[in-house]
Amino acid sequence: MKRTLGTCYYPEHWPTELWAKDAERMVDAGLTWVRIGEFAWSRLEPTPGDLRFDWLDQAIEVLGKAGLKVVLGTPTATPPRWMADKHPDMFAVDVNGNPRGFGSRRHYCFSNAGYRAESARIVELFAKRYGDNSYVAAWQTDNEYGCHGTTLSYSDAALQAFRKWLREKYQTIDALNLAWGNVFWSMEYNDFDQIGLPNLTVTEPNPAHSLNFRRFSSDQVVSYNRMQAEIIRKYSKAPTSHNYMGRITDFDHFKVGDDLDIATWDSYPLGFLEDRVGASVEKQRAYARQGHPDFQALHHDLYRAVGKGRWWVMEQQPGPVNWAPYNPAPLPGMVRLWSWEAFAHGAEAVCYFRWRQAPMAQEQMHAGLLRPDRADAPAMAEAKQVRDEIAKAPDVAPAQAPVAMIFDYDAEAAWAVQPHGAGLSYFCLFFETYQALRKMGLSIDILRPETRDFSGYKVVLAPGLMHMPEGLKQALTQANSVTVIGPRAAARDGEMTIPTPLPPALPGLDVTVDRVESIRPDTPIAMQGGGAITGYREMLVGGAEVGLVAEDGVPVTMSSGNITYLGAWLDQAGMSRVLTPVIEAAGLTALSLPEGLRLRDTATERFWFNYGTEAVAYDGRQFAPASVTRELLPE
Amino acid sequence: MKRTLGTCYYPEHWPTELWAKDAERMVDAGLTWVRIGEFAWSRLEPTPGDLRFDWLDQAIEVLGKAGLKVVLGTPTATPPRWMADKHPDMFAVDVNGNPRGFGSRRHYCFSNAGYRAESARIVELFAKRYGDNSYVAAWQTDNEYGCHGTTLSYSDAALQAFRKWLREKYQTIDALNLAWGNVFWSMEYNDFDQIGLPNLTVTEPNPAHSLNFRRFSSDQVVSYNRMQAEIIRKYSKAPTSHNYMGRITDFDHFKVGDDLDIATWDSYPLGFLEDRVGASVEKQRAYARQGHPDFQALHHDLYRAVGKGRWWVMEQQPGPVNWAPYNPAPLPGMVRLWSWEAFAHGAEAVCYFRWRQAPMAQEQMHAGLLRPDRADAPAMAEAKQVRDEIAKAPDVAPAQAPVAMIFDYDAEAAWAVQPHGAGLSYFCLFFETYQALRKMGLSIDILRPETRDFSGYKVVLAPGLMHMPEGLKQALTQANSVTVIGPRAAARDGEMTIPTPLPPALPGLDVTVDRVESIRPDTPIAMQGGGAITGYREMLVGGAEVGLVAEDGVPVTMSSGNITYLGAWLDQAGMSRVLTPVIEAAGLTALSLPEGLRLRDTATERFWFNYGTEAVAYDGRQFAPASVTRELLPE
Amino acid sequence: MKRTLGTCYYPEHWPTELWAKDAERMVDAGLTWVRIGEFAWSRLEPTPGDLRFDWLDQAIEVLGKAGLKVVLGTPTATPPRWMADKHPDMFAVDVNGNPRGFGSRRHYCFSNAGYRAESARIVELFAKRYGDNSYVAAWQTDNEYGCHGTTLSYSDAALQAFRKWLREKYQTIDALNLAWGNVFWSMEYNDFDQIGLPNLTVTEPNPAHSLNFRRFSSDQVVSYNRMQAEIIRKYSKAPTSHNYMGRITDFDHFKVGDDLDIATWDSYPLGFLEDRVGASVEKQRAYARQGHPDFQALHHDLYRAVGKGRWWVMEQQPGPVNWAPYNPAPLPGMVRLWSWEAFAHGAEAVCYFRWRQAPMAQEQMHAGLLRPDRADAPAMAEAKQVRDEIAKAPDVAPAQAPVAMIFDYDAEAAWAVQPHGAGLSYFCLFFETYQALRKMGLSIDILRPETRDFSGYKVVLAPGLMHMPEGLKQALTQANSVTVIGPRAAARDGEMTIPTPLPPALPGLDVTVDRVESIRPDTPIAMQGGGAITGYREMLVGGAEVGLVAEDGVPVTMSSGNITYLGAWLDQAGMSRVLTPVIEAAGLTALSLPEGLRLRDTATERFWFNYGTEAVAYDGRQFAPASVTRELLPE
Repeated sequence: MKRTLGTCYYPEHWPTELWAKDAERMVDAGLTWVRIGEFAWSRLEPTPGDLRFDWLDQAIEVLGKAGLKVVLGTPTATPPRWMADKHPDMFAVDVNGNPRGFGSRRHYCFSNAGYRAESARIVELFAKRYGDNSYVAAWQTDNEYGCHGTTLSYSDAALQAFRKWLREKYQTIDALNLAWGNVFWSMEYNDFDQIGLPNLTVTEPNPAHSLNFRRFSSDQVVSYNRMQAEIIRKYSKAPTSHNYMGRITDFDHFKVGDDLDIATWDSYPLGFLEDRVGASVEKQRAYARQGHPDFQALHHDLYRAVGKGRWWVMEQQPGPVNWAPYNPAPLPGMVRLWSWEAFAHGAEAVCYFRWRQAPMAQEQMHAGLLRPDRADAPAMAEAKQVRDEIAKAPDVAPAQAPVAMIFDYDAEAAWAVQPHGAGLSYFCLFFETYQALRKMGLSIDILRPETRDFSGYKVVLAPGLMHMPEGLKQALTQANSVTVIGPRAAARDGEMTIPTPLPPALPGLDVTVDRVESIRPDTPIAMQGGGAITGYREMLVGGAEVGLVAEDGVPVTMSSGNITYLGAWLDQAGMSRVLTPVIEAAGLTALSLPEGLRLRDTATERFWFNYGTEAVAYDGRQFAPASVTRELLPE
Repeated sequence: MKRTLGTCYYPEHWPTELWAKDAERMVDAGLTWVRIGEFAWSRLEPTPGDLRFDWLDQAIEVLGKAGLKVVLGTPTATPPRWMADKHPDMFAVDVNGNPRGFGSRRHYCFSNAGYRAESARIVELFAKRYGDNSYVAAWQTDNEYGCHGTTLSYSDAALQAFRKWLREKYQTIDALNLAWGNVFWSMEYNDFDQIGLPNLTVTEPNPAHSLNFRRFSSDQVVSYNRMQAEIIRKYSKAPTSHNYMGRITDFDHFKVGDDLDIATWDSYPLGFLEDRVGASVEKQRAYARQGHPDFQALHHDLYRAVGKGRWWVMEQQPGPVNWAPYNPAPLPGMVRLWSWEAFAHGAEAVCYFRWRQAPMAQEQMHAGLLRPDRADAPAMAEAKQVRDEIAKAPDVAPAQAPVAMIFDYDAEAAWAVQPHGAGLSYFCLFFETYQALRKMGLSIDILRPETRDFSGYKVVLAPGLMHMPEGLKQALTQANSVTVIGPRAAARDGEMTIPTPLPPALPGLDVTVDRVESIRPDTPIAMQGGGAITGYREMLVGGAEVGLVAEDGVPVTMSSGNITYLGAWLDQAGMSRVLTPVIEAAGLTALSLPEGLRLRDTATERFWFNYGTEAVAYDGRQFAPASVTRELLPE
Repeated sequence: MKRTLGTCYYPEHWPTELWAKDAERMVDAGLTWVRIGEFAWSRLEPTPGDLRFDWLDQAIEVLGKAGLKVVLGTPTATPPRWMADKHPDMFAVDVNGNPRGFGSRRHYCFSNAGYRAESARIVELFAKRYGDNSYVAAWQTDNEYGCHGTTLSYSDAALQAFRKWLREKYQTIDALNLAWGNVFWSMEYNDFDQIGLPNLTVTEPNPAHSLNFRRFSSDQVVSYNRMQAEIIRKYSKAPTSHNYMGRITDFDHFKVGDDLDIATWDSYPLGFLEDRVGASVEKQRAYARQGHPDFQALHHDLYRAVGKGRWWVMEQQPGPVNWAPYNPAPLPGMVRLWSWEAFAHGAEAVCYFRWRQAPMAQEQMHAGLLRPDRADAPAMAEAKQVRDEIAKAPDVAPAQAPVAMIFDYDAEAAWAVQPHGAGLSYFCLFFETYQALRKMGLSIDILRPETRDFSGYKVVLAPGLMHMPEGLKQALTQANSVTVIGPRAAARDGEMTIPTPLPPALPGLDVTVDRVESIRPDTPIAMQGGGAITGYREMLVGGAEVGLVAEDGVPVTMSSGNITYLGAWLDQAGMSRVLTPVIEAAGLTALSLPEGLRLRDTATERFWFNYGTEAVAYDGRQFAPASVTRELLPE
């Protein structure tokens, strides 16, 4: 499959007369895909039942005839104002109990039955009308589930649905009380209808309560999306997709992905830098115009897994955005670099958001490929350069990576409920491990937690998996790979209870976590020989072989055969000391790439990316700032 | 007109027997004015309709007979508790939807019709009773509109009034949808009654929605004040005034001022330093006991414009206040210095707040001219020194300044709605420009945005005017002055939309903003030759002459003839590099005053103010710390 | 009386079969006391009226028979879920007006009559059933009053009770208006039923309003506890107690203590370090695994006073807790050190919280003496060491300390209502004074503000007593001790009004506070000769002898005979300059202990505690890190 480019377009924002010219310029820019429709409900149904699909018919026709393939988005992320009159209880409710009002987007609650029925109705209207339209080559459900903190809703609809969900899960209230340990603090319920949502409590609620609410909320997203996907499939053979976001982790993307054909995501390397990446201020400064060198890569690998191999970038930042704390322009070359980083990770398509900067409303400061006055914006030249490079490059050629990491949305939820130390999160632990591997020049596959077959992987890492079902423990410890598990692995059973025997209780590895501690960021614990523990550590005891040791003599790693248990959150120097011997034991090479330089291999190519603002030399090669270098791998 | 002094007095706080002695001491202290009445409603009408004006009659009589002129304040800023029983919906509502309760002050909502009628009633009672009282020499409406964040109210009354205001402005809902660009995110309304207030939305509301709400809210203040002013005028020939605050900018003071004869303001140089001035921590430390050297001056110039030339300081801080994060005592000499800074800017009167420190309630830690035990407080001696100095000094003699800056409350609103970068505000941009000019020793006039005639000004500056009507563009670019416009000038049309041709689209100046960016405070962009861009910049293209240039080659200024466009927010060094040649091109001298030293010219005098804690020498003169030096200008 | 150890146990969390083994292990560990019952309501009354006390009978029997003494806690801190159905209005309401929901603990409002009746009912059930049970050797009422910010409730029940309380206090609304100074800002009420709670006002409410609400709220805790204590006394001769917390100061513990026999408190040296101690970041880092060297000591002394000499540590942290921002493990030796610090201050018992770490619910990460899998946790060995040391040590032998400090909960409330400078609090002022004394090697008694007889004390200190009744002024100034009063002493009368003559108006000391100021933390005022003023100072005038003086010449201390008035908040160097001559004038020795080393004397012993992570030498002795050294005092 050839690598392709695309863009996001809003025909409803522009005069009809402009559409043909826009389509022509898109084709000229080498674009294949154009996504439309996902925010257009008020123009398709201005008042309840008054359907006006003619303009959309025409837009699809104009774009399709010009040679573009349409990705059609269902418009459910932006219910029109009249919907609130029909369903006054449709609004999501925030953690303080305030309904989240009309006037922006994503204001609906996933649990509201009325809005779910309206969603089904509009999706069916779309699917029926365009299901066999040859120009509609793919579908998108809704837009950016979970964005703006919209997964968790504390509405009455959510409360009723949560009680139902709990009743189905636990069958009896005694079973729930037992599972949650509600005897603690006399929190026992007599009936499911006594259960509330875990907000506004005097001090923290039961972590089992909170975790179940997060699992329920995730399931609501999954079932809402499945409803849309199933309707579309009834009428269309075109693949379905959803555009996920960067570091929105409060629903299980793997489960949503199971109901779709392609995973896409919206990549805003500069937009995400301040608030999502979790990087130090120094990194934020150093990469202010380039984005973090590993943040996009991680998401590429993650969504490749969510898409079961098929994935796109649906929205690629082409210039300054409007919504970050600071909105700088990318360094010249970065739009091209970001595009190629995606292709190097196996993307089938990279679509720029958006075609033309809108002069009005919330995103009027969001750059596009065109300026508001229709002139080319700076990104256009880079997009055209990518177009030309793609033409000469090989097809998408994914290859299994040598290193695998397990990512578990449920672990993220468990850590969020109980970080144990301020600022600790599963995502950050995972990301820091990922960074350490990227700096060693390794290509990485991300695996879902249901994985039991690790064949083909030389190294497997499972940091922070608070809940590890027995099957996963067995599969991991019996894999042929060199395996690193922990910290905080298997620290809880599926009900958020500390199991006995104490964690991690891994087959064949005599290690027990005697106790754990979290520590101030300014009191790291040095390790003998270099590196340091930051944030969190476990006191490991047992008969397994002691590896690295902290200055106070407490083991940091213990291992047996191919399996290493890591009992601490380490800084990058410490991470390198743990991972380098692991990588080498697996027969791989651990490079030590200079700051800002990264690489990624496909089956046939090696890509070098210099995220730095200065040229760097490495291994006899020279890399210009903000540059991409492509080499063919020896066969 | 002679410069005069005054104070604020609360006869209702003290035994009747004390009034005559207080009046005598006021006269002895050289005071002309005494403001009373503005918080006394509960003593004038203890229960609905039970009017008790006798004591106020007596107080005015006692004060007037002693030789003082009374400024009578209407008591509407503190409706009594019984008002809440009559009008339970009278409370302003905060952004979270909570009514702002009784128990302090300014709890009313400007949109509440019931309270507006009560206000009209009490004002009419005042005006009828004292309209021809010869001791009542001036009026004050209400007290400190907008203080404590009370301009914006999210009440139901505000909602209904906002819908009415929008209906009058746009006539049809289609016109509103088009003007706001509501097609974006399907935000279109079918009826004005569907429009809500722009709070509690999921992510930011439409900036046009927010800006209109701010304009509406400003208009509510204007019409509320007009109601009071018109009633007073029916019965009295004495001038009307209102006491504005420092950096309360969320209603249009020029429009309020149009309905009044005199502008006054409440100057708390130390009270404002931490939270209002926007100065660096270093400046806050350096001027902890003196106040920022330019903050008062800016407001003096601003309110001189608001008062169409006639202005006072109605409340001058005479010692520590009670309400700032930290409440230090002023350096000895500062009460005198502040008084003279006001006179140097043309004040007709400076009144100290308050006469005697109250031993009870919220302001019990607020210093007065007297201690709570009636002894002189430290400020008294400085007030008497000013009294003696005034006696020997010339009359108020305003002169047109050589430099003018346009200040636009609507631009402040537009920036507040859309700062584009964290921490950016119109006021701060304006203030930093003002500071740069003050450091050059220049006296400044502030002009309202409706100004079209700039004759007499050698230099005109218009930073940050997001909306510039065509008439203003024409007038500015055709003025005889040397003119600096930008950054962010004319970036939006009156509906908060990016216009085409792209900004700034100034007649006779071929400059276009290709795109803009906001940047982290810790990543300034150096300019070639010195100075730096901080916070915000525009990529300028076009045929005009390039002036200053950033290190990456992007123009910072471009000009044509007398008109310079400035496309960035600069630090003080950068500002100086832009302004020095402008000042000199206009035939003025750009001094380089030492830190803390400032000057201000009237028609006949030059005042030097040393805000520093150390003596400084300049141009052969010596200036003691916290000192004022007055020189007569050569005729 | 022998020093004893104990623990907190939750039989309802564990299988019945485990109880006997647990009891045996407790006895083996040398424990005397076991506290049970305080969170068990849902197991004792699973549905309204369905009483199930059998298991508790059995647990007491098992524990008692094994030789343990039971402390029985009333379960009122955790009303079960069904209580909310019976009394939907029982919830405390937060400052924003949100009811504090079910799902954790302490969700009840002290003012709710329905819940108070339910509390009386369950306490009576307890007292009747176990009042003459010989194993029940002590009682605890409720658990940690005030924890999680639960003293202040803004409920309707609180509002009605507050009005009643005010009516009883003031009798007429005119008296209240006069006392509060409500003429200010027209805040006068016509009726007690118009008075609201002091939350959600536009700007700060009247400080008299706030202070009265705090006094009322404190009284509600007192009367609620008295209700419980009186019921227990009807049926039992065993002593009553309550477990107070660290730095919960928003109710008057002295008054609660008046209704109980023993004061206990819950000591979490690491848990409190970040958010409660108020220490600098440097101290937080230095003592991250040891706790602040003086924070526990202060509370030991305070609760010894609250318990009228009889006091325990009811919950002693034995390892990492779960609820602090960071939860590190204690340095080896600290559990022993903390235990001995308590005994050195006269504790009768130290009980470790908790016996076994719970695998479930909110405190699953809270260490116990046992791990969740029943193995010994690290603290067990230190507890056993203390057991052995106690066996050989003398009995509890309290002695009057040479130095006394007056602690006043009402002063804490007054400062909280009106700190005057950001970050200033009475507790911190008191604590800094206490630290200065501890560093001099002094043992301290804390006295309640009703104290009038200071005989036996060589030095008495009264910092920050905003309200000083005449009797206290008389007693303090006529005591035989060397006495230090201030800053902010007698600054208000009992109604929060500034008195005339101005403060401090101490008999026999000609000092007047001319005015006060608060200052930025980064602008300390140096004193002549060393030390500095931070945060707050008073301008002292008068005829008394000037002692220390600030660099600007303002007196810092003034004195007459034995009485010194201190007019500033000083840093530790400044505090030492004030206190050293005072201590020496009283015939005591002011040591200068090295950082981290502290001592405490009983009647017969001297204890040395090294809180440092390094060994220190002092006065010819060597002290290992985290060590306790006991010496017998010469007779």
